[in-house]
Amino acid sequence: MSDPLLLPELRGMLLENDAAGLKEFCEVLHPATAADNLAELSPTDFWKVLSCTNLNRQVEIFEYVGAGRQRQFVADVDRQHLTALLEEMAPDDRADLLESLDPDQLEALLPLIAQAERSEIRKLLSYPDDSAGSVMTTEYASLPEDITVREAINQLRLQAPNRETIYYVYVLDEGRRLRGFITLRKLILARPETLLSQIIERDVISVRVDDDRELVANKMARYDFIAIPVVDEQNRLVGIITHDDVLDVLQKEATEDVHRMGAVDPFDENYLEASFILIWRKRAAWLSCLFVAELLTYTALGRYEHAIKAVVVLSLFVPLCISTGGNSGSQAATLITRAMTLGQVKVSDWWRVVRHELAMGLALGLTLGCIGFLRGYFTSPEKLDGADRMTLAIVIAQSTATICLWGTLVGAVLPILFRRVGVDPAIASSPFVATFVDVTGIVIYFNVAYAHGLIT
Amino acid sequence: MSDPLLLPELRGMLLENDAAGLKEFCEVLHPATAADNLAELSPTDFWKVLSCTNLNRQVEIFEYVGAGRQRQFVADVDRQHLTALLEEMAPDDRADLLESLDPDQLEALLPLIAQAERSEIRKLLSYPDDSAGSVMTTEYASLPEDITVREAINQLRLQAPNRETIYYVYVLDEGRRLRGFITLRKLILARPETLLSQIIERDVISVRVDDDRELVANKMARYDFIAIPVVDEQNRLVGIITHDDVLDVLQKEATEDVHRMGAVDPFDENYLEASFILIWRKRAAWLSCLFVAELLTYTALGRYEHAIKAVVVLSLFVPLCISTGGNSGSQAATLITRAMTLGQVKVSDWWRVVRHELAMGLALGLTLGCIGFLRGYFTSPEKLDGADRMTLAIVIAQSTATICLWGTLVGAVLPILFRRVGVDPAIASSPFVATFVDVTGIVIYFNVAYAHGLIT
Repeated sequence: MSDPLLLPELRGMLLENDAAGLKEFCEVLHPATAADNLAELSPTDFWKVLSCTNLNRQVEIFEYVGAGRQRQFVADVDRQHLTALLEEMAPDDRADLLESLDPDQLEALLPLIAQAERSEIRKLLSYPDDSAGSVMTTEYASLPEDITVREAINQLRLQAPNRETIYYVYVLDEGRRLRGFITLRKLILARPETLLSQIIERDVISVRVDDDRELVANKMARYDFIAIPVVDEQNRLVGIITHDDVLDVLQKEATEDVHRMGAVDPFDENYLEASFILIWRKRAAWLSCLFVAELLTYTALGRYEHAIKAVVVLSLFVPLCISTGGNSGSQAATLITRAMTLGQVKVSDWWRVVRHELAMGLALGLTLGCIGFLRGYFTSPEKLDGADRMTLAIVIAQSTATICLWGTLVGAVLPILFRRVGVDPAIASSPFVATFVDVTGIVIYFNVAYAHGLIT
Repeated sequence: MSDPLLLPELRGMLLENDAAGLKEFCEVLHPATAADNLAELSPTDFWKVLSCTNLNRQVEIFEYVGAGRQRQFVADVDRQHLTALLEEMAPDDRADLLESLDPDQLEALLPLIAQAERSEIRKLLSYPDDSAGSVMTTEYASLPEDITVREAINQLRLQAPNRETIYYVYVLDEGRRLRGFITLRKLILARPETLLSQIIERDVISVRVDDDRELVANKMARYDFIAIPVVDEQNRLVGIITHDDVLDVLQKEATEDVHRMGAVDPFDENYLEASFILIWRKRAAWLSCLFVAELLTYTALGRYEHAIKAVVVLSLFVPLCISTGGNSGSQAATLITRAMTLGQVKVSDWWRVVRHELAMGLALGLTLGCIGFLRGYFTSPEKLDGADRMTLAIVIAQSTATICLWGTLVGAVLPILFRRVGVDPAIASSPFVATFVDVTGIVIYFNVAYAHGLIT
């Protein structure tokens, strides 16, 4: 996402060694814009440009560089520069970067970092990947409750330079337990001599450090906070998660879900920039699994070979019947998975979901069955091969209706089952459900044909 | 999402007409929590509880009630109360509510609302549904640039009560053109006598009022803003979009995309609460379309009926071959659609995408072809019916490879094509692509069989 005008200008300044110009480039643009363009440079040039500005600005820009490029740049800079940078970075961004490094690289770096930061890093790295702890930052603003508004604002001025946000301020007791919170807006509207304890909000909505980040995102979306406090099991404040991190979480989770639904092992990288081999692996793995599973359709169909030989027209309807199951199954799976992601459906709701989808599957099955009946009835005589037109129509109608109901139920139940056993329900995705229903659909279809005496 | 403890307590207080308790209920809880529980009440009870608190708090709670319930409550309250409420609501929330009403209801309400608000409403309602204008609010904080920091903070105190946020303040000239912006954090850190013009950020990143809301969400996610200014074609500030609205947009867009991918006409309602008929319509419409399209597989297969009669084993591999196309197609469609949503791929990148997917389709096709070859080769002799084992293996391998390549290309190109003609690329979803590739897959499969002389 580099700029077609800025990037050549940047390269020009590099060629001319225009330190003043490079400094201006770093300091005038929004750090995200600067980062977008600097990411196109070689590591050597990247660090050359960054060195033209102060460490603070370097950190701001570096934090906006994408994860993949960050890793590459980090591999190619002298240790001292890197250490200074790491010590200044926001704890959550730093933890993300360090987590993406090789263990060897990480172990070589850690001893160079100051003791205080080091234990901070180890702590943040210890939280599981999708937990609130892994996205929070420890740089929150906090105040005691027994001071006045005037003192509070003065203390905030001192804290401001290295806090992620000062718009939400948390009030803690001596044990760092969360007692309340107040917004900066309320602070500057209050009379300076008012005591904090009189005006703070005591009903604080927080998340636990081991909560899933998806739950955090849903809470933030519900309550419209700029930041949400993260507490441990003793209600001690351990960090905050800010609105921008939640936005990232939401985007990442949506990408993950969408990828899983499309039978791709999720990846974070930019589609056009990711490595071919990586993407091939992630796609081939799923496609091969589905292909192998789909081999079962051959086995299932093989059992009815004699029936096909007797009434060839039956084989012509096979793709129609099984795709009906696939489509209705992926529809139900999609709806339930999304509703679970949004927190609308919980595992305990399974019985309501089943009842609902049973009725829906019947209604949808009837709809498709009617169309199927018409198609079966108007099969051209030379294709019928002696089979009875009406019987064929009834077989097609009943099969599509049954398979549609079956697909809908499977699609609804699988995601709940997956969530129940702790697997991401998005895995019970369209292609997965479709493959499963393809095989069973064949069995249903031929059994309906037997039942109506179309084959013997 | 009502609380199993709070709701019975609330009902109890209502029975006892405990006005003081109801007032406390409204004022102590977070308005979102209060709204979650109040939404379970009948309209009469809902308004009875709300009346126990002041108008400001009523508005705060009402804004958190879901769209569907809001509509029901609004239909059952006296006009005067409703008018007072509407006049106090945030312009963006109010516009959302009014937009969801029947045109008759809306026209009956508008004359009761004060003139100034009314023209505001008409303006916000005039922006197209998915535009920045439709999600922005007009209640932003703004300042002239020729005042001091002290004066600025004093002016902000006056503006604060009815501004959505005062953490980002926009600096405008006399023509309301956007000249710069400053954060409250920077303001309270600056020396009181400093002139605003000396410290404001002049490189303001903004969006246009007719920009797509998806673009707004991507910009906010990139730049980590709390709010982004919305300007018209003359760079005049017309509103702001805040972080919480962007979070909602992102969630809604993700739901829309996921639903489309699963062949459901998107809907906003809670899955468990939405009306059966509504959901049936949204699901049946798509399933029927796909079913009718899938009827073409019968027609396609029908053309090869004589071939199936001659070599029945061929028909046993049909589901395998066509599902290969469906899976590889939905995989590619998913990846490209998501990359377009995230702004990573633009229509102008189509050639890069095609080249990329051509290579990927070949690699994936080879992978599946190898598995297909083995399966074809180990077909049990009694199924072969005189067909040559090696020829069959080659036909299966070549068909799956070709169909996989074809599916990948179709899946990659269709979303780009859809976006190019202004249709949401998510419509080119898995089931849509799968159905298309199913039909063409049959043709490819039998033509490969002809080419190798397996059928004549």
